[in-house]
Amino acid sequence: MAEEAMFDFIHMEAVSYVFQGGEKISEDEAISKLEHMGFATGYRLVERLTRESGRYKDELDIMKYICKDLWVTVYKKQIDNLRTNHQGVYVLHDNRFRFLSHMAAGKQYLQYAPRYLAFTCGLVRGCLANLGVTCVVTAEVTQLPACKFQIQVQRG
Amino acid sequence: MAEEAMFDFIHMEAVSYVFQGGEKISEDEAISKLEHMGFATGYRLVERLTRESGRYKDELDIMKYICKDLWVTVYKKQIDNLRTNHQGVYVLHDNRFRFLSHMAAGKQYLQYAPRYLAFTCGLVRGCLANLGVTCVVTAEVTQLPACKFQIQVQRG
Repeated sequence: MAEEAMFDFIHMEAVSYVFQGGEKISEDEAISKLEHMGFATGYRLVERLTRESGRYKDELDIMKYICKDLWVTVYKKQIDNLRTNHQGVYVLHDNRFRFLSHMAAGKQYLQYAPRYLAFTCGLVRGCLANLGVTCVVTAEVTQLPACKFQIQVQRG
Repeated sequence: MAEEAMFDFIHMEAVSYVFQGGEKISEDEAISKLEHMGFATGYRLVERLTRESGRYKDELDIMKYICKDLWVTVYKKQIDNLRTNHQGVYVLHDNRFRFLSHMAAGKQYLQYAPRYLAFTCGLVRGCLANLGVTCVVTAEVTQLPACKFQIQVQRG
């Protein structure tokens, strides 16, 4: 629990620093910087985690790894639902995403949700990049603290 | 191990962002920003950790808590040596400080060490502030990856 807290707090500090503590940058630039931090973290994390585990059968197998092992490692729970169109789009539903769980429910807070999703979009993209899957990851909140991450695999 | 890795990686990203990713700020300003992130993290962490634990007998007792419980929680090891002059100065020796252990030994890297100590100086200061002890925390490296943190309690 303490380790989770450390990770939550330092993540919150990073978000707050990128948005308020540094230079004046646009919302989009700040989101992109957090995404980049997440990417670097995810890339290295997977290197550490999969050092001794086996190869993955296929793309879906890799996605299942993200939804189960990786999510448990980072967020202490599994992704609640994984859907795919079998054409390179995967949607991961988290019914109680940890970085949103501290936010009060209410429409007025929804506008800030992307700040708390950017790092994780990057994290997923970084993990997948290291596993050989190039993709674009976006996130969407409908009702706090639930959200979904959409992975669009880039072919060719 | 994976949780440790997450914390290490996001910390490294924060350091790298503060020093390279944002606006052009001086080394001192960047150090101070990391210290501030550490302070906020430490302040909140102690709130979470000590919610159910007892009060501390005295200042030395609080320092022992930092050296043992807190250090184990955050860095997975205890402080190796605690010294005090019994007049408000405490020196905590860590013979293998985790945020320095990834740095290659060599004098040319020593100049960058303060970047990897600033967050932790703030963390200790934040923890102590929340426990009612106002202080200044500085750190010094003699031989990588060993370092010492000096706590100077501010009286009155």
